[in-house]
Amino acid sequence: MRARVFVTLKQGVHDPAGKAVQGGLVSMGYEEVQAVRIGKVFDIELADGGPEAVVRSRLDEMCKKLLANMVIESFRVELL
Amino acid sequence: MRARVFVTLKQGVHDPAGKAVQGGLVSMGYEEVQAVRIGKVFDIELADGGPEAVVRSRLDEMCKKLLANMVIESFRVELL
Repeated sequence: MRARVFVTLKQGVHDPAGKAVQGGLVSMGYEEVQAVRIGKVFDIELADGGPEAVVRSRLDEMCKKLLANMVIESFRVELL
Repeated sequence: MRARVFVTLKQGVHDPAGKAVQGGLVSMGYEEVQAVRIGKVFDIELADGGPEAVVRSRLDEMCKKLLANMVIESFRVELL
């Protein structure tokens, strides 16, 4: 079983790396780029087992404990 | 207009950060986690303009020139 977890900065949290990428793209001639925000995506391979609700609940735990910094980031889990 | 770009390591490229996350999760009791690979996601805000084919082609260029390292990474563009 596979899962994909998106971890992105919460709205209002400053993203200097995204700002640098936006500035870089504009200076390369892509003036249409108004804002860039950078997040992470975790592709996770899981051993089969358990009902979907349990799998999802354990993935939520993993996000809260390790994958995301809940102070500044939010996450979204997709089962594939 | 908004776009989302996923940049992920190509198959076969070693991902030590993903491996570390996988080991961390297993050591925290999530033994079902067999593999983790980490990618980046760019949320891009674009000024409206031009037909979708042009927007897409310019995003492809941005990926090849700046957002992705085409030697080791591949990318996927979604228009939202």
